Formats: sequence, structure tokens, C-alpha cells
Amino acid sequence: MARRSMREEIVNAAVDRFHTHGYNAAGIKDIAEAAGVPKGSVYNHFESKEALALVVLELYGETRRLGELSDRSVEPLVRLRRHFEFLRDEQEQYGFTRGCLLGNFGAEVADHSMALRGKIHEGFDQWSHALAGALRDAVMTGDVDSTVDPDTTAIFLLSSWEGALVAARSSRSAKPFDAFFSSVFDRLLVPGLREPA
Amino acid sequence: MARRSMREEIVNAAVDRFHTHGYNAAGIKDIAEAAGVPKGSVYNHFESKEALALVVLELYGETRRLGELSDRSVEPLVRLRRHFEFLRDEQEQYGFTRGCLLGNFGAEVADHSMALRGKIHEGFDQWSHALAGALRDAVMTGDVDSTVDPDTTAIFLLSSWEGALVAARSSRSAKPFDAFFSSVFDRLLVPGLREPA
Repeated sequence: MARRSMREEIVNAAVDRFHTHGYNAAGIKDIAEAAGVPKGSVYNHFESKEALALVVLELYGETRRLGELSDRSVEPLVRLRRHFEFLRDEQEQYGFTRGCLLGNFGAEVADHSMALRGKIHEGFDQWSHALAGALRDAVMTGDVDSTVDPDTTAIFLLSSWEGALVAARSSRSAKPFDAFFSSVFDRLLVPGLREPA
Repeated sequence: MARRSMREEIVNAAVDRFHTHGYNAAGIKDIAEAAGVPKGSVYNHFESKEALALVVLELYGETRRLGELSDRSVEPLVRLRRHFEFLRDEQEQYGFTRGCLLGNFGAEVADHSMALRGKIHEGFDQWSHALAGALRDAVMTGDVDSTVDPDTTAIFLLSSWEGALVAARSSRSAKPFDAFFSSVFDRLLVPGLREPA
């Protein structure tokens, strides 16, 4: 395996620190220590904590497996379900802590940094586009009622998921995830009524 | 109007600071200045920032108008819609900033303070119980399909709302709220199919 560059070490440590502690509570000193580099090195690579956080959000977005949502070898509703199951399992592994870095930064710093807000918005936008693609396929195959609007429903699904993460952290339980899966897959994303033959 | 006590001044200033800046970014010094009291006075009334935040969450919960959800002089779906319209209008007044204090603390500090996590959980729990009550009434009146489970759906509605707040802050737009209203009131909370006569 290729040795990671100092920059990569810093970014990886920052993903972890920002995710577990939040933007304000994660210090550059902690990040440098976790990366095993002197504090000054962080500022050699990034002009500010905000600049580092922008790169972190980019990297985090790449781990959300959005590509799987457009994999047409898998049925569209199966793709959607597996996507949220992957996200749920990740949270369960962390004992219902951490949540989603995009959502966390959205709640903590979206009002205070235009650059970070733009990046969070971009992240959510890419995500809801990927969800909308799968929903569009589900409408085409008739797995979901044709009156369901894919774009609107994608925004709603993503919001619902982000909120379920916060509720799961507060209750340290899977209950909000269970409510998400049953409401979404048994209620919202269902086929239309067939006309009687 | 009765003059507010110093304690009340501090708590009111803290609600505002925590809501606009978040838990970690709101300093006791800022809170004291906003309340117009010396910093030491805050510590005379509250042993820690955490202790102050617990009182703040209690007060914030009381402003969520949960009582209206059980007002049986109003049709249950109208109660639910008005509830979320009140919350939406509040966000629009703030220019899509601030979000919900419970959700913000849930994302920022739920993993780091057992006391705050408990209080956030309690707040969400009271809220989803109030929503479940209105949903139960809607099922009884036949406004909502009888196979909808009020408790599960209440948890889902609250999550969906909390996530919509984060998305609205990130996009500085009402789009996530629009997606919430159409998905919830046109799709999820609808009457069951009537048997043909």
C-alpha cells in the first residue's frame, strides 16, 4: 500500500475528529495530534480550519456510496433500501453516535460560514439527485405510484434520514430508523392502484 | 409587566445565544453580556454551561405549542398542518437560519453530555407523543388510513421535520419544507380506500 502523504493523514484525522466532536469542539491541535504531525504542518497545508473542513466534506461525500443508487443491474427500490440499510448499519456500528457529517455541520455551522454552507448544500444536492434517479427508475418500472414526484420525494427522503440520525443519537436506539423504513418503504414508496381488468 | 429576575434574563439570553451560535460557540461571557449581567452572576445561578443548557432546553420545549396538537375543537389533520406551518413560518422569519434548538443540540452535543442527551431525548419524546395523539384522532375520524400506526408515524414525522430544518438552513430555501408538506399531507396522511358500496 502506498504511504499516505502528510496532507492525507491530516485530512483523514480531521474527518474523524470533526465527525466525532463537531466543528467547534474539534481543535486543530487535536487533529494534528491524531494525524501524528506538528500543529504547524496543518497550517502549511490548509490556510484555516474552514479550508480544511471544506476538503473534509468533499471526502466524506465520496464515502456515501451514491454510485450504487444508479446501478441499473439492481431493482430501483432494492437500491434505495440497501442504500439506507448501509447508512443505518454504519450508525449501529458506532453505537448510534456520530450521525452524518453533512447534517452535523448543517446544524452547527451552516449559519456561520458561507463557504461551508455552500459545500453542505452541494453535498445534499448531489445526494438528493442520486436518490431522485433511483426514484425515477422506480416510477418507470411501476414499483412506485406514477404520481410520486421523484425530485420532491428525494429531498423529503434525505431530510427524513438526516432527522432520523439526530433522533437515533438522542435516543441511542434504532427506533427512528425503524420508523423511517416502515414509513418510507411500506407507505410512501408503493405501487399505484391498478385499474380493474 | 413584572420585572424579570436576573435568572430569567440569563436564561432568555442563553436561549438566544445557544440557538443562534450552537452549544460550543456560545460562550458564558457572551450570554452574560447579552443578559446585561456580570459573568460571575451566571455561575451564581448555574453551576455550569451544561446546567444552564438543561434549563434552556426545558424553556425552548415550552415554546413548541404542543398543546395545540391535542385541541379537539380543531380537526386532527388541520391541527397537524397548522403545527408545522407555525414552525415553518418561524424559520422563514429567521431567513432560514437557527433551525430547532433540540435538533441542533442533538447533532452537536448528544454524544458528549449524557445529561443533555437525556433532555433532548425527553423533548423529542414529548413532541412525538403529542404528534401521535393528533394522528390517533385522525385515524379515528377516518381522515388517515386505519393501517397507519400513530406512534411510528409520529417519530417519522418529527425526524422528517428536523431533517428538513437542516436542509432548509443549508439551502437557505423553503424547498425542503415544501417537500415535507407535499410528501406528508398529500401522500402519507391520506384516507384509506373505501370498500365499493
